[in-house]
Order: sequence, then C-alpha cells, then structure tokens
Amino acid sequence: MGYHLKCVNCHKTYAPDHDRYTCDDCGDLKGTLEVVYDYSKLTLSREDFSPYEGLFQFTDLLPVGSNTSIDEAMGGTPLLEFEGLLGLDRVLIKHDGLGFSSSFKDRASIIAVNKALELGYDTVYCASTGNAASSLALASAHTPLKTVIFVPSTIPKGKLAQLLVAGAQVLPIKTTYDEVFDISLEIGRKKGWYCRNSAINPYLLEGKKTAAFEILVQNHYEVPDFVFVSVGDGTIVSALMKGFREFRDLGLVDAIPKVVGVQARGAATIQHVFEKGAPFEPAPEEVSTIADSISVGNPRDVVKACTYAQALGGTFISVSDEAILDSIHEMAASTGVFAEPAGAAAYAGLKTMVASGEIRPEHLVCVVVTGNGLKDIDAVKGQTPVEFYEVAQVYELMKGETE
Amino acid sequence: MGYHLKCVNCHKTYAPDHDRYTCDDCGDLKGTLEVVYDYSKLTLSREDFSPYEGLFQFTDLLPVGSNTSIDEAMGGTPLLEFEGLLGLDRVLIKHDGLGFSSSFKDRASIIAVNKALELGYDTVYCASTGNAASSLALASAHTPLKTVIFVPSTIPKGKLAQLLVAGAQVLPIKTTYDEVFDISLEIGRKKGWYCRNSAINPYLLEGKKTAAFEILVQNHYEVPDFVFVSVGDGTIVSALMKGFREFRDLGLVDAIPKVVGVQARGAATIQHVFEKGAPFEPAPEEVSTIADSISVGNPRDVVKACTYAQALGGTFISVSDEAILDSIHEMAASTGVFAEPAGAAAYAGLKTMVASGEIRPEHLVCVVVTGNGLKDIDAVKGQTPVEFYEVAQVYELMKGETE
Repeated sequence: MGYHLKCVNCHKTYAPDHDRYTCDDCGDLKGTLEVVYDYSKLTLSREDFSPYEGLFQFTDLLPVGSNTSIDEAMGGTPLLEFEGLLGLDRVLIKHDGLGFSSSFKDRASIIAVNKALELGYDTVYCASTGNAASSLALASAHTPLKTVIFVPSTIPKGKLAQLLVAGAQVLPIKTTYDEVFDISLEIGRKKGWYCRNSAINPYLLEGKKTAAFEILVQNHYEVPDFVFVSVGDGTIVSALMKGFREFRDLGLVDAIPKVVGVQARGAATIQHVFEKGAPFEPAPEEVSTIADSISVGNPRDVVKACTYAQALGGTFISVSDEAILDSIHEMAASTGVFAEPAGAAAYAGLKTMVASGEIRPEHLVCVVVTGNGLKDIDAVKGQTPVEFYEVAQVYELMKGETE
Repeated sequence: MGYHLKCVNCHKTYAPDHDRYTCDDCGDLKGTLEVVYDYSKLTLSREDFSPYEGLFQFTDLLPVGSNTSIDEAMGGTPLLEFEGLLGLDRVLIKHDGLGFSSSFKDRASIIAVNKALELGYDTVYCASTGNAASSLALASAHTPLKTVIFVPSTIPKGKLAQLLVAGAQVLPIKTTYDEVFDISLEIGRKKGWYCRNSAINPYLLEGKKTAAFEILVQNHYEVPDFVFVSVGDGTIVSALMKGFREFRDLGLVDAIPKVVGVQARGAATIQHVFEKGAPFEPAPEEVSTIADSISVGNPRDVVKACTYAQALGGTFISVSDEAILDSIHEMAASTGVFAEPAGAAAYAGLKTMVASGEIRPEHLVCVVVTGNGLKDIDAVKGQTPVEFYEVAQVYELMKGETE
C-alpha cells in the first residue's frame, strides 16, 4: 500500500525513508510525522474484517506486512460489554491487558520488529517506562534482532521480569523516563539502531490505531460516544483518534467517538498544553504519580495529540492517584478486568465524567485497558491486607458464619 | 445437547443432577465422572468452527450455554508456530497464559460460573494452588455469585493479587494444597455451595477440553504427533485427551496426538501410579517443587488421567525444578512466550524427549503453556541479577561496546 509521511506541525511531506523519523524543520518534539495512505485507492468494506482476527487483518492500513511467527498473537483482544456499570446502560471494555506481553504496547512493537526486519537492521532499541520495553523484548525474542532496552530503574517488577527472561540487553537507569528517552535517542542514533520509540517513529502509531479499528469491528460498527484511555507520551490517544478517523473517512462508519485522554493529576502535562490552546507548544513539567506507565513530564507526542484532539473532538482530563488505585479494585470487582494503574486510570476518568454529569446513562462508552494488573502487583498489595489462617481457624470462621 | 454422566472407574451411569459430582459406589477419589454426550445425534463439520472465535463456539460439546458478559473473552488463545526450535521442524505453542485471568483455568471457571448461575446457586467455591482460584474470582466478579476461595498460604503473589482485587472471600491456609482441597470440599458440601474443583465436578473438564479443539481448528485440522502439558490434579491432561478423542470420534480428524503429561520430579505422583499399571490406584505422596501449580501430592483425577492415557496412547514424564526454571528463560528468549513454572514444565518435558531421541525433527509437537510468567515473577528473579546504572555509566558502557 502506498503512503507518505506528513509533519503534524508544518504539514511538510516526506517520502518514507530508513532514517526518517521526524520533520527536519520542526525537530523531534514538535515535528512528529503522520503516515498518510493513498486512501483514494482503497476500497474497504465491513465484510473485509472479522471481530477477533487480530492486527494484521488491517494490512491495507499498515505500513508493513506480517513476517514473524508471533504476528497472529497480536491484537484481537476481547471487547467486553457490561450493562449497568456505574449506572450506565452499556459500557465496553477493550482489554489489551490480554495482549501478547499483557499490554497495549504490543500493537506498536510488532510493527517495529517487522519494519526492522524488512529494512535489514540488526538491532532495535527503545526507551520505555516498562510496557513498550517488555513488549519489544518479547516480540523480538524469536527473531535475529538484538534488542537494547533503556528504562528508568523504577520500572515495576513484573515488567522487569519480562525483560530479563526475554534475553534483551536491559539498561535500567537511575533517572526519569524523560531523561531515559533522550539518552536512548542519542545512543540509538549514533549506533544506527532501529528506533522503537512510538513518539518518534511514525509507523508505530499505525499499529496502535488498530485498537480503534477493532473496537468498531467488534462492536458491529456501532460507534461509541466516548472512548477513555490513559495518556503517557500521547501516542495511544493520537492513534485511537487516527484509527477512528480513517474508518470514518473510508465510509465504514459515519461518526467518530469523543476520545478522552486520561492523565494522572501529578503528570498532566498534555492536559495543560491542550487547555492553553493552539498553537500547541511542548511545555515539560516535573511529574509524579504511582501510575508508572503515564509518569511522563516531557510527552513527546504532545503536539500530535493536541492537534488531533482539537480537530476530532477529543479532550484531556486528569485523575488523582487515589482514584486510580481505587479504580483497580473497583473495575476488577465489578468486571473481572484486572488493570495496571495506568489501565485503571481510564476507568477513573470515566467515573469522573459520570459524576460530573457529562456522561449520561444512555451514552455508549468504551474504556481501553492498556496493561494487565499482574505487571505491577505492588500497586494493589497495600490496599487489601490479607490474613493467613491455621486450619482450625478456617473451620471456626466458616462455622460462625452461617450455621 | 443431551448428555449423561459415567463413572470412569466402574462405568455406572448417572443422570445429570445438581448435587451429583462423583460416583456413589467408587467415591470421590476413584469415582470421578465423565460427561457423555449423545454423539450419534451430533453432526459437526470443520466449517462449523473458526480459529479464534473462543470457547463457546463449541456449545454443542459443552454441558452449559453462554450467559455472562465475559464469555467471549474465554478461549481463543493464540496457537503460535516456530520453525527450528530445539532442532525440530515445527513446534506449536498454545499460549493460554493470554487467557482472561492469564491461565488455562479460565476454561473451567467459566463453565462453573455459567453452571452455578443456571442452577440458581448463590455461592461458588474452590480449592486451588492459585490459578483456578484467581480465574474463578475474576470470572465471577461481575455476576451476583459470592465466591469463596481456599488456597495454601504459599500462593504466589501475582495470583493472590488477582484474588484480592476481584473481591472474593479468600482463605489462605497454612497447609498443603492437598489438605486445602479436603477442607474446601467438607465446608463447601456442608454449606451447599457450587463446587469449582475440576477433579470433582465433571463439567469443568468439559471447558478444559476446548483447548484440544482449538489446537486442531487453529492448526487447520493437522493433528500434532505429541502434545506436552503440565499435570497437577490430572484434569487438564485428561481434558486434552478427551477433546482430541471427541473430535476424532466425530470424524473431524482421523488421529489422536500422544499427550505427554509433564510433572515436576518432586511431585510425580501420577507418573508413579501410571507406571505401576492398571488397575490404577490413588497413592498419595509427600511432594515438593517450585512449580506451585503442579505441587500436588494427592492428585484427585489420577484414575481418569491414567485410564485415558492408557486407552489413548498418552504418557507421563517428570522434569527437575532446575530444568523448569531454565525452561522459563529458554522459552521466553527463543519464542517470546513467558510462562509460569508449571507452564514452562511442558517445554522442559519436550526438551527431555528431544534429548532422548523420542521426539525427532519431523514430529509435529505442541506445547501447552498453562499460565503466564507474570503470575510468579519470583520464580525468575533470582536467576538473572540486574544492575542499575547511573546516567554516565550508560554512556560509558555503550561507548566501550562498538565504537
């Protein structure tokens, strides 16, 4: 499928090229690129797609083909529907905690792995708060690619365990994610490695947008009114908006959901930039939140995220760490979906807008869960103290209860 | 679909009944029951099934229908194919670590939840080393069912976290799984709760057998020569054998794979019983292994497992804890599949039989991964020490490496 690249800031276009990541004029932070397909040559119909077939069924709207043994494990995560949740008629949950590496980031990593193989690279690298890293390490494990991972040393244990077993070269650095990102770019570029940083490499968003396609296909093309998703660098929220837009522009649906990017209150940089209004200027902040995946002070895709949101009716809100932790428990106990903190942030965002009355019972809402709770069990441990029983105690307890 | 129950030991038959779990004559341990459908009334063809549609596409061969909001997240896990792994032409991996609660046990829990709802129970309970418990707790979370969980206090942290967030009543008891099982049965029966213990409740195996169906459908009905799976109580291995047998008996395939049940060397009770030969007599042992999911000294489904294996060409082997731990790393690094210890035991079993020459390169082999490595990260931690770097150290390290 033919495509070219377009700067999200100045709209300058570029031909696809091995080493082309961002706009020459606008730079890495403002000049992220968008992949633009030759849409007029595409004729797609609803019958071309099936609910659980996975990410590579959308090859016509992807910048790379399927070449690896694990491609068919990518995407196709369940879309669950619950009635009466939070007083709403219907709530959908897109459970990407059930992806190959148990996070949404697989959708981008598999694009990077296939692209790196296609282009003949021998090494792929990324900076990550954890999920992109563990996803890349596991997705590349069976290939000849060498994988180098830059993460902050605060990475949760589950994500670190995934990295270690996958056999990647792991560099946990004693600094913030934002500095880790800069270090990775500097070293990766010098070495000539392939970059799996979603906010820099325009192809990765293309993998992420398939979650939007799947939500529409799995929901039988009924368009949700609102879609909630947590926001770190800003790429996932941009990806969902682009995916919804493409399906609308291709005539597969006739509307676009309002995408709500949910940030932690202590790391709400994109919300602040968005609320200041266009022209959107990156404005890094010092941040702090228990939701490691979205603990980002210098979000690299802020311009794209805000630009898309402005054009497509998206918005940004933030929620407290306490609300996030409560949501992990509340969502699991009411739906069985166990999310990591960033995943539960989306649910906390929904709760906020239900409480404010912006979401009404008849709205069809979709919550995107971006990571499995097993990745960061320390986030739940303290909340629910557990007692260990002697055998006799159990009998006593059970006796006392109903007899 | 019509069905009746048949004792696996004396072949006495029973009509399905609310409180019917085992054979009156043979007792709980020897008299487990098999669900027998009215196969002659079934006409199924290959076109009736699709590769990723999930467990409830097999409703004609299940003892319960689909009634809950999460049913469509059950089953349909990926079947991956790798060339050249361990020197074999083709190895399939059925990755049930990507199930709803990240383990194979979802296939049984969803049957229990639907059955309990259908029969009007208000409480469901189980004894579990961890996965059945966390699976049941998450699968029942969105229903009105109360869930009571009996587990040994040694349950790995990830599984415990899943239980706690799901809001189940959790009773971690300071004793072995085998005693926990007895305690749960005694209390559960007295209370009149619905029993989700696979080895007692004959319907649960029916959910588990869908993994066999899926392996055949996803592999386009090419029958593997060998299927490796870890063994705890013996129900999963029995379930796979029954599933393969049913598809053969229904004419959907013309052969049955040799199912190899893999135990930990320190908990190889079923292997010992099987090797003694028929008539198979339960012979409980003291056991010890790091693979918590298969640390079972009094396997409740031993008679069924051995009977099926004898009839259908199955067998049992055991592997050391060291081989299991090594296999976690080796499998992840060569396939990207991160398994918990019991899941990796199946891979260790394959390695053993490759080394012995029983498996040859041209054999088509399938390894069933029954649980996600994220459930028990302590099992990998010690193996790969990790260093945390200062920023300057990273630059130094990277400089030294290739420039």
